[in-house]
Formats: sequence, structure tokens, C-alpha cells
Amino acid sequence: MPKNPKQLNELFHDTLKDIYFAEKKILATLPKMEKAAQAPELKKAFAKHRAETEGHVMRLEQVFKEIDAKPQGKTCDAIVGITDEGAEIMKEYKGSPALDAGLLAAAQAVEHYEISRYGTMKTWAEELGLTSSVKLLQTTLDEEKATDEALTEIAESVVNQRAEAA
Amino acid sequence: MPKNPKQLNELFHDTLKDIYFAEKKILATLPKMEKAAQAPELKKAFAKHRAETEGHVMRLEQVFKEIDAKPQGKTCDAIVGITDEGAEIMKEYKGSPALDAGLLAAAQAVEHYEISRYGTMKTWAEELGLTSSVKLLQTTLDEEKATDEALTEIAESVVNQRAEAA
Repeated sequence: MPKNPKQLNELFHDTLKDIYFAEKKILATLPKMEKAAQAPELKKAFAKHRAETEGHVMRLEQVFKEIDAKPQGKTCDAIVGITDEGAEIMKEYKGSPALDAGLLAAAQAVEHYEISRYGTMKTWAEELGLTSSVKLLQTTLDEEKATDEALTEIAESVVNQRAEAA
Repeated sequence: MPKNPKQLNELFHDTLKDIYFAEKKILATLPKMEKAAQAPELKKAFAKHRAETEGHVMRLEQVFKEIDAKPQGKTCDAIVGITDEGAEIMKEYKGSPALDAGLLAAAQAVEHYEISRYGTMKTWAEELGLTSSVKLLQTTLDEEKATDEALTEIAESVVNQRAEAA
């Protein structure tokens, strides 16, 4: 197979635009989720993740810099679909005790999408020799994984609280 | 907070329809990915996962049975978005040495979506006392995680092969 680094470069750049769009979409969505959440620990988790997401956007801008490209987003159908599902849940389960469970499910779908994207991009950055980007992508990947774990704990605690209230 | 199991029941049922649609969509997409893949180990992984996915669909049908509902899908915007991105990659990177890397990225995005959904549904099934469904969902969750790990290994080996060919 002939080496054609330009093509992996392009794939990296395309996916970078995709995740840049996704992070900005998430940044716009989190305040709505924070407002809708009922459990104080869930509100707090969404607020914390919003602050982190601002950092993720800035790190992606540094990755764009390392490949000499202008920070630019490209519509990411996946994150649009995932956030649309979240919006639907906020509408359909408004006022329901199951709302938080639905918000948690939507947030964890977002986290897993990001975990897959950052994992992939880190592997590609390694091959492309983008030393600085590897570190930036790894840092964000670690934060996304930690957020997912925190959300799992909240999901289990929400379930326990509901069971105790029964 | 008043207990209102019917509402979590509904959320469970809605999400079950969502993942049932998603698994069927994946079942239709995997043969295309298998055909497009260049590396034999990737073709093989997609073929193996197709066979597993048939089992996932059957397990979901047993979960529908436990909640006395008819197996029925509901359009899942998230999986439509994720598979659309995969289709775009197959088109844009046809004949490129980066195609396999793109296919792997798309497949891992699918896996992570499923991991988040099955994790969520298992937690809800526990609360709802759906003993048989908890086991069924856990079995599929384990398979999805194993598939994701296998894909990560292939992604790293594809990267090494490219580096050796350089």
C-alpha cells in the first residue's frame, strides 16, 4: 500500500472540523440541560462540564494551529442527531420524575460520541507526528471519560433516590 | 419526589424502540462496511460483528416480550447521523489508503453510541425489576465493549502497517 500521508491528513482535518462543530453545539446545549435538570448534583455536573467544554474548544483551536489550519466547524450529523434526541426528551418528559434519567442518558450518549472521536484523533495524531496535538487530545479524552464516569455515578444515585422514595 | 414508575417505563420503552431501530440500521450498514474495508482483519471484524448484531436484535425482542410490548423501532436520529457520516467517508475516501482508518472511526462511533445506550437501559431495567432484561442487556453491552476494544487494536495495527510501509 503506497504511503499517502496527505489523505490521512485530510481525514484528520475533516474529523477535527466535525468535533469542533460538535463541541460548539454541546456548549450551546449544556445550559439548557442544566436549566432542565431537577437533581442539584446533575445541575452542578452540567455546569462543570460546560466550563470544561470551553477548554476543549480552546484545545481544538491549538490543534488547528499545529496543522496550520483556520479553526472551522463542519456540520456533524451525529451530534445533531444526538442533541435532537436530548431536546425531544426535555420536551416529552418535562415535569416528569423520569426527566433526569432521560437527561443523563442524552448526556452519556454525547460523552461516548466524544470519547470515540478523541480516541480516534489521538491515534491519527500519533501517526501524523503531531506531538503537541497528541497531548491536547489525550487531556480532553481523559476529561470526557471522567465526565462519563461521574454521570454514571449520578445515574445510579438518582435510581437509588427514586427507589428510597417508593 | 413522587414515584411514578409508569414514566420511567415509558422512557425505557421509548429508548428500547430507539436502540431496536439502531441495531437494524447497523445490520443493514455492516455488509457495506465489510465490502469497503481493505484490511482482511477489518473485513473479518465487520463480518463477526454482523453475526453478533443479529443476536442483539433477538435479545431486544426478548426485552420487548418481558415488558409485554410488540417489537417496534422508532427512528433514532443519532444512529442515522452516525451512519450517514460513515457513508460519506466510504464515498469520499474510496480508493484511499486512509479509507480503513475512516471506517474504523465510523464503526467505533457506532459502538460507543451502543455502549452508552445499553449501559443506560441496563440501569433502568434494574430499577424497573426487569430481571431477565438486565441479563440480556448486560450480555450485549459486554459484546459491544469487546468489539470496541477489538476495533481499537485493529486501528493501532493499521497505523503500524502504514508506518512500516512508509
